[in-house]
Amino acid sequence: MRVPLSVRDFLHRAEHVYGDRIGLVDEPDQPAVSWGALSYRELARRARSFGAALAALGIAPGERVAIAAHNSARWIAALYGTCMAGRVLVPINFRLHAHEVEYIVRHSGARVLLVDPELAESLATIEVAHRFVFGAGSDPELFDRQDRPVEIELDEDQLATLNYTSGTTARPKGVMLTHRNLWINATTFGWHTGISDRDAFLHVVPTFHCNGWGMPFSLAAMGAKQVVLRRASGVEILRRIDEHGITMLGGAPAVANAILDAAVGWDGPIPGTGTTRMLVAGAPPPTRTIERIETELGWEMIQLYGLTETSPLITMNRRRAEYDALDPAARAVRLSRAGAPVLGARVTVDEHGEVIARANVVMKGYWDDDDASDAAIVEGWFHTGDGGIVDDEGYVTISDRKKDVIITGGENVSSIEVEDCLNSHEAIAEVAVIGVPDDKWGETVKALVVLRPGLQATEAELIAHCRDRLAHYKCPTTVELRTELARTATGKLQKFVLRAPYWVGHTRQVS
Amino acid sequence: MRVPLSVRDFLHRAEHVYGDRIGLVDEPDQPAVSWGALSYRELARRARSFGAALAALGIAPGERVAIAAHNSARWIAALYGTCMAGRVLVPINFRLHAHEVEYIVRHSGARVLLVDPELAESLATIEVAHRFVFGAGSDPELFDRQDRPVEIELDEDQLATLNYTSGTTARPKGVMLTHRNLWINATTFGWHTGISDRDAFLHVVPTFHCNGWGMPFSLAAMGAKQVVLRRASGVEILRRIDEHGITMLGGAPAVANAILDAAVGWDGPIPGTGTTRMLVAGAPPPTRTIERIETELGWEMIQLYGLTETSPLITMNRRRAEYDALDPAARAVRLSRAGAPVLGARVTVDEHGEVIARANVVMKGYWDDDDASDAAIVEGWFHTGDGGIVDDEGYVTISDRKKDVIITGGENVSSIEVEDCLNSHEAIAEVAVIGVPDDKWGETVKALVVLRPGLQATEAELIAHCRDRLAHYKCPTTVELRTELARTATGKLQKFVLRAPYWVGHTRQVS
Repeated sequence: MRVPLSVRDFLHRAEHVYGDRIGLVDEPDQPAVSWGALSYRELARRARSFGAALAALGIAPGERVAIAAHNSARWIAALYGTCMAGRVLVPINFRLHAHEVEYIVRHSGARVLLVDPELAESLATIEVAHRFVFGAGSDPELFDRQDRPVEIELDEDQLATLNYTSGTTARPKGVMLTHRNLWINATTFGWHTGISDRDAFLHVVPTFHCNGWGMPFSLAAMGAKQVVLRRASGVEILRRIDEHGITMLGGAPAVANAILDAAVGWDGPIPGTGTTRMLVAGAPPPTRTIERIETELGWEMIQLYGLTETSPLITMNRRRAEYDALDPAARAVRLSRAGAPVLGARVTVDEHGEVIARANVVMKGYWDDDDASDAAIVEGWFHTGDGGIVDDEGYVTISDRKKDVIITGGENVSSIEVEDCLNSHEAIAEVAVIGVPDDKWGETVKALVVLRPGLQATEAELIAHCRDRLAHYKCPTTVELRTELARTATGKLQKFVLRAPYWVGHTRQVS
Repeated sequence: MRVPLSVRDFLHRAEHVYGDRIGLVDEPDQPAVSWGALSYRELARRARSFGAALAALGIAPGERVAIAAHNSARWIAALYGTCMAGRVLVPINFRLHAHEVEYIVRHSGARVLLVDPELAESLATIEVAHRFVFGAGSDPELFDRQDRPVEIELDEDQLATLNYTSGTTARPKGVMLTHRNLWINATTFGWHTGISDRDAFLHVVPTFHCNGWGMPFSLAAMGAKQVVLRRASGVEILRRIDEHGITMLGGAPAVANAILDAAVGWDGPIPGTGTTRMLVAGAPPPTRTIERIETELGWEMIQLYGLTETSPLITMNRRRAEYDALDPAARAVRLSRAGAPVLGARVTVDEHGEVIARANVVMKGYWDDDDASDAAIVEGWFHTGDGGIVDDEGYVTISDRKKDVIITGGENVSSIEVEDCLNSHEAIAEVAVIGVPDDKWGETVKALVVLRPGLQATEAELIAHCRDRLAHYKCPTTVELRTELARTATGKLQKFVLRAPYWVGHTRQVS
């Protein structure tokens, strides 16, 4: 018998097997809009209400529903509700500039936009048929309806979400993820990380990132408790772990470092020692960070590698019995690799040194961009754009990002996009945007600029120029004026030459 | 991207991520044929060799390969090798009579038959194109070849195995299980039972039962160690747990009881206390057995429910946090239910009280038997033949076996098949075969017989009549002569009336 694989399965099981349990704890710091603690039964009711709301608005199955909001219980209820009703969620990075959000809303064809109260003003000008600000005002229409959605037949290859990535070009691309993609990602993710009905998870990673890496699905399947965190700070993360008995959380290396800093000044035993596992992804964590997670926090560190285009999980590095006899520093070296392919994923390196993957978690393609899809998926293999190696143990290490992407605090920034923005300034003749090491964010954005003869511009002015047009995290934190930029014989910028001086002494350079 | 779900994924991962690890430990009690301990790399090599052997014999993709053998490393290598090469394994109960084995070989159209050394003589008369006795003699041709099989493209809906079940009729039926069925079974099974790369599993359950419940696949995915046990005895199970650090095993309630008996006389601490989980299926275990597993062994008891037709896993009952505060006796009552539907399975009870299931683990249908397939799968729901209830907590309890099946020591016996056999005896006028309670086997087979006027037959004679024609475990252990049998107005045997007196005082009656 074939039954369409669908993300309905996850919340369905939570509701029917763990209905009475606390399923989701909303952020308490915003009492005016917080839902507090919800049982899985109540969460499922609100997700269904949202599906019925879409139908009542005339949003047909397959239509897109955009969301630009911080982590919240409503975000997760909208994710479940949209996908389960056969509509397509378009998660948008809440840090993007209004112009960027508008582009994604238009490009995806979304007729519904859900926005965080904090973004209500900045996103007020976006034209869209139905715009809702999350909060008590819109709850009766969205999340507290009495009508139930008609349960339509789903196809496992139909889209569940459409996730925009900054990618390598100036315009974000829409990654089409199907129900089958997400089902298999959530199931292999859940198994490999050992999610059980005794887990409690803290949503530190912004849920727009690949649908929170698929965790809302994996966790619901096993009835695990989910706790929403709106703003990640090291101290607040430790507090929540303590308060809710958190056993699992995720974050970029910068988040891990923030927790380690907070732990130094923490009064009393570190919460979660011996019981918590931390999933780290977004960039390779420094070996020292891995070692400190184990020795200073007493947590298990699990490294993941993947991309929005792979749902995201394709490799995992988790402490195995073979590492038990190693000292923490030696073990950290082993754990600093991106990891081994997870079940069902084939991951290897092609003749150009690029990491390629073949798996059921690879996207269907890019939305309305066949050329980009054809360039990314060639003869059944997805090209990650990352350079890497596969060692004798079958483990992948990412050694080089082929795509010109800077990863700062877990966010991908397209150098080209920032260069395009700077090029629109009249004083600029040439520009190269690179990532340079940063203690807090791993990397930070730097612009190297050659001005037009006779024209002037200050560092502050150029940064302000970007801030008017781009999300703040994409903007250069420093600008250096140059008289020329290193180029190849054919005139291409030699970014590795430009970057090299800044990375002296940084062994974890991935550039 | 769609990649066919295929059971290749499991051993592939074991080989590439855990290649150096001991993957499989063969039964040591037969040194002449034992493979000893194999790494996953070596196991994969032998599985591939077997695939190449099938090709060399001219066995085409999709053709059937029958196996009648006790648990052994070769059995598991043949399972992997056959499925991975796109051929179809037909696992046969090694306890069947030669006539029964022959029927299955013919019905399935298998042109290869693999037999255990112990069965070489009894199965010598079966006509088949290629017959191999497992052992050193056939290893060079089957498991130690230098050529590699051509890796053919697989379809996820093509058959991986064809498993014959005694079912409800006189003839066994072939359950068609696809690669997709087995992939999803193994993945949800592995996740729900928490199989990790630190597990070591003891193959107590005969591997012909639904391919060892799919464990060879789940375990390989995580690189867990598998230890083969050829003959289950309580003491031997405890010894192996001790020797290999076993953390997981499975068995029917009768196996659990044998372990509990052995533990009473065990010298020293019980092996596996605090680390081992025991999967119990095949029949509902008595509450007292569940309690004793927890209190006398210190193991976790996990109950499973499913059928060959469901790959098998559809419900599971595992200790959850809500049960922690209960005393062991009260907890055992909660754990005595068949369990809650696993991820992706919808399990409910229809208007006739029959348990029905809709899931990707449900078989494709019965081999060459469209009528039986159409009767079993109706409008997208598989009819288990078991009566049951779903309680307020969403848990299934099996209360009644609609199909006329006796489960003795974990083996299904079709009452009708035994009745047919007895009816072939000239002295018998009427017969009813029922299950009656048995301390060791849970149930045992009893025949109630009305003789033809003027003819005579003794109990021993009728049992011997069956033993000449049926597997021993199917034969009545007792025969009672009656003058008449209870029937309905329309003449149907009222088995529940016939059974009732034997079950007085047995609270766990499932009949």
